[in-house]
Amino acid sequence: MATGQSWRRALPSLPILDWGRRYDRDTLVSDGVAALIVTVMLIPQSLAYALLAGLPPEVGLYASVAPLLLYALFGTSRALAVGPVAVVSLMTAAAVGEHAAPGSAAYWPVAITLAFLSGAMLLAMGLLRLGFVANFLSHPVISGFISASGLLIAASQLKTLMGVQADGHNLVDLLAALVRQAPNTHLLTLAIGVLATAFLFWVRKGLKPLLRGWGLGPRLADILTKAGPVAAIAVTTGLTWALDWQAQGVKIVGSIPQGLPPFTLPSFDPALWRELAVPALLISVVGFVESVSVGQTLAAKRRQRIEPDQELVALGASNLGAAFTGGFPVTGGFSRSVVNFDAGAQTPAAGIYTAAGILLATLLLTPVLYHLPQATLAATIIVAVLSLVDLGILKRTWVYAKPDFIAVAATLLATLGLGVETGLVVGVSISLALYLHRTSRPHIATVGLVPGTEHFRNVLRHAVQVDPAILSLRVDESLYFANARALEDHVNDAMAAQPGLRHVVLQCSAINAIDASALESLEAIAHRLRDAGLQLHLSEVKGPVMDRLARTDFLQHLPGQVFLTQYQAWTALRGSSADTQPPPTRGTAACG
Amino acid sequence: MATGQSWRRALPSLPILDWGRRYDRDTLVSDGVAALIVTVMLIPQSLAYALLAGLPPEVGLYASVAPLLLYALFGTSRALAVGPVAVVSLMTAAAVGEHAAPGSAAYWPVAITLAFLSGAMLLAMGLLRLGFVANFLSHPVISGFISASGLLIAASQLKTLMGVQADGHNLVDLLAALVRQAPNTHLLTLAIGVLATAFLFWVRKGLKPLLRGWGLGPRLADILTKAGPVAAIAVTTGLTWALDWQAQGVKIVGSIPQGLPPFTLPSFDPALWRELAVPALLISVVGFVESVSVGQTLAAKRRQRIEPDQELVALGASNLGAAFTGGFPVTGGFSRSVVNFDAGAQTPAAGIYTAAGILLATLLLTPVLYHLPQATLAATIIVAVLSLVDLGILKRTWVYAKPDFIAVAATLLATLGLGVETGLVVGVSISLALYLHRTSRPHIATVGLVPGTEHFRNVLRHAVQVDPAILSLRVDESLYFANARALEDHVNDAMAAQPGLRHVVLQCSAINAIDASALESLEAIAHRLRDAGLQLHLSEVKGPVMDRLARTDFLQHLPGQVFLTQYQAWTALRGSSADTQPPPTRGTAACG
Repeated sequence: MATGQSWRRALPSLPILDWGRRYDRDTLVSDGVAALIVTVMLIPQSLAYALLAGLPPEVGLYASVAPLLLYALFGTSRALAVGPVAVVSLMTAAAVGEHAAPGSAAYWPVAITLAFLSGAMLLAMGLLRLGFVANFLSHPVISGFISASGLLIAASQLKTLMGVQADGHNLVDLLAALVRQAPNTHLLTLAIGVLATAFLFWVRKGLKPLLRGWGLGPRLADILTKAGPVAAIAVTTGLTWALDWQAQGVKIVGSIPQGLPPFTLPSFDPALWRELAVPALLISVVGFVESVSVGQTLAAKRRQRIEPDQELVALGASNLGAAFTGGFPVTGGFSRSVVNFDAGAQTPAAGIYTAAGILLATLLLTPVLYHLPQATLAATIIVAVLSLVDLGILKRTWVYAKPDFIAVAATLLATLGLGVETGLVVGVSISLALYLHRTSRPHIATVGLVPGTEHFRNVLRHAVQVDPAILSLRVDESLYFANARALEDHVNDAMAAQPGLRHVVLQCSAINAIDASALESLEAIAHRLRDAGLQLHLSEVKGPVMDRLARTDFLQHLPGQVFLTQYQAWTALRGSSADTQPPPTRGTAACG
Repeated sequence: MATGQSWRRALPSLPILDWGRRYDRDTLVSDGVAALIVTVMLIPQSLAYALLAGLPPEVGLYASVAPLLLYALFGTSRALAVGPVAVVSLMTAAAVGEHAAPGSAAYWPVAITLAFLSGAMLLAMGLLRLGFVANFLSHPVISGFISASGLLIAASQLKTLMGVQADGHNLVDLLAALVRQAPNTHLLTLAIGVLATAFLFWVRKGLKPLLRGWGLGPRLADILTKAGPVAAIAVTTGLTWALDWQAQGVKIVGSIPQGLPPFTLPSFDPALWRELAVPALLISVVGFVESVSVGQTLAAKRRQRIEPDQELVALGASNLGAAFTGGFPVTGGFSRSVVNFDAGAQTPAAGIYTAAGILLATLLLTPVLYHLPQATLAATIIVAVLSLVDLGILKRTWVYAKPDFIAVAATLLATLGLGVETGLVVGVSISLALYLHRTSRPHIATVGLVPGTEHFRNVLRHAVQVDPAILSLRVDESLYFANARALEDHVNDAMAAQPGLRHVVLQCSAINAIDASALESLEAIAHRLRDAGLQLHLSEVKGPVMDRLARTDFLQHLPGQVFLTQYQAWTALRGSSADTQPPPTRGTAACG
């Protein structure tokens, strides 16, 4: 990458200046239609996720205005729909719940502060170009974490479905609390909730084929299907109002204040900041990963690109926006973004129109939602999050690679059993530990010449020519501190096992780097071989590795030579060796 | 390695059964001479390191009996001299100092408990074959840590040299305390200490050439040089006794109880265990690394082998032995082991004779040491530890590789500024983070055909043939979660930059593994290329990687082929490509 370009890319940019200039009427229509559909979908979701986060429902609407506008200014994805999402709302509940009781006056300000810290961290990471940090969340960890979060969220909604109080930040506590509360179940609430859930599942699975059967186009059928929650809300709200179910004990959303999102300030208490720092970081990273994954997937479908570091800036601005307008942590959500994309959103302007739609709803629509049963919202959450649960990953990773399976299973169990924050930290730690463990035990193959060629292959897999005076080793890993000793041990064992040995050749074709520790190990190996009257040679050393070795005195003290190819080493050393041409033979040397 | 052997090696062994069977008179003489020399060296060292650890001097003698006997039973090194060592004593002082004041009655039991926990951990690690954990301490981290510890120890001894009280677990605190105490310096103590230090430095640098000049053999000259501390102790003890310097305020070792090491028990307070767990683990790992490094170096000189997992068992037993006989954490020390080796120790029996010598000293010699000035012991420590300080590593790593330099510098500064435990944790964390960061940004070379050969090389380094319809990429790193996205980005950028592209070939010769995350990235890449009408091919996939891919449906859905060699891919795809043979040209494709 050219230096000039790097320098320019180090500054945050305003992508709106790019697409805004070419904005035309067709794009306006496309964006407007997409925005309308997303708005209809977002209203119940934002209310539901605010409740999931332990906040009053209107906070969900507040978090769906300023963040969308700011993302439209700074974001690079054309179709990402920013706002409250399930997993981040759950993490918010876990983090804020440590500092204030849900429903208490102290709760909302902590959520605002969390959004502020998360926004500041995302912005800082973007400006420092630390987007790569998200790469350390492996697919197995993300998958296990999202599935476990989905199960936790679904379990947490059961209390609303049952009309009881039950809390807990892990599955065991939650289920235990639900079982204790089971006798207090409010049957009418349960009936509403279960029917709504069943209806929504049917909408997902059965409605689309039905609509297609009636002759509707696939796109329209898809969009009508996504409007299922709105139907559930309309029907249950209407029934609750008409039959006065509130008087019978059904919990409703109640009065939502009408008006613009308020101007709010985060707390500047350093003690609170310290305690929220880790949850804010975890929320930032999870939100960023979710957002970037969906953004990249959608961009690639149109051969567009998103810029991860710029996305950090945009998400940072969105969360800061949420903090100053009474919201809570937000990110780019999977399902809404896909709907936005499928509905034809061409530019981030669709987000601006969606924000306008939500603002209108905040000003005008809230009285209509007064009789909306909370159980209906719980049903929409349950149906949404269960689609995130993918336990098939356990089987797929089991078949493909055990370390990945361990990472999935550990993340899943730790998240379910110990809560979202611990679960995520456990998952990341285990996946890194497994990677380090693998690289610390490199595959070291003893290689021999494939007869009739200049190629060298593993003596255990191929019928190759070997020479009792020459040991050719190929290390299939870069050499660094964690595996340097493994090579020393391997060479020591080989020396002891092969008494006629005179030359050891390290074929370095798979060695992409040699760090200072590994250099010391190579020096130790060379020294020991020299003490024992043997020579150490290198072959096929890559350019950058050679450049670095040339800065030390290692090559001067090497008791052997550096060969361009393994074949040249073999030819030269066989000539010097006392033994003459043994017949091709299946090698017998040990292979670690 | 054969399964049967692995199974046998999973059990701890008794190496004494091996060498003990062949023990003869010659070996007895060699071992006896070595033991005598090591005993003479160990007496002052054990007293001094006990004082460094904040313990009464006799505890150093106790820690030099049972541990040596147990190591002789279980250890695999023929020459390792186990006992109190400088760095572990400093770490002991830092850990125990958190729980009791040095000199208080509560202090010693905590040190015993620390030895017990450390022993139990080492034993457990040995039985679980976790010796590889020590590999994660890189040479730069060890080097920075040992140098910083040496400086900290030397600074901590200045107070004894000055005859004042001053404490602190980092360099800044220590030096500040010393400056505050400077007016109280006891001048006679300072004179003894400074002269003893100067004498010992001279013995190290100047005595050996002098003795050689007098015609002594190199080995004898070497051994006499190592006896320097004994001379300093004899002279200053004699003068202190004769001139009654104690009455003038010179602090002396005083009365050391005569008799066998006592039988002691560690504390079984779970709260204390919890708090000592991390320090005990750090002491275990540092002690193990120091011990194994010196053991391996000495074993290699005689083409012998040591068994790291068995060494863990032996050091575990030694520390448990220390805990039950009034000692404190021990390990194999560098300087004494080298002396033992050079003096001709053939088997661990030398350790048994040394233990007997120390036992005799404990029973008989302690009255003689009554008038030994503490300043002399401080001088022996200062001279010993300053030889551990190697600041040249900073320059060497700066020249060789910046990440290694950062690891050394960070470990050094953190240890000096924040103390031994934090320093070590910072060093390990930084070195792992730097490694992960490097592997997360793999070198991806665009390769082309070297004319007249079947070899493919980086287009930026070589004049090679390329084809505008074919992009050949060689990733110089195994693919795993942290770098999977980098490959996706690289391919996306390349797709956008090369409009005539029809085929992307990944040359997998340096890819030793593909984890589940990287597999998903490859699937995403294949999918995007297919969507854009391009094909993805693989070449030179290693056997184990191919075996694993074959367990998934990736290869069935691959929109291209898997070629045995990059050259076969090139030949096949050129044939299918519309363009015909452009002339050899210096490639222009981007290189990440």
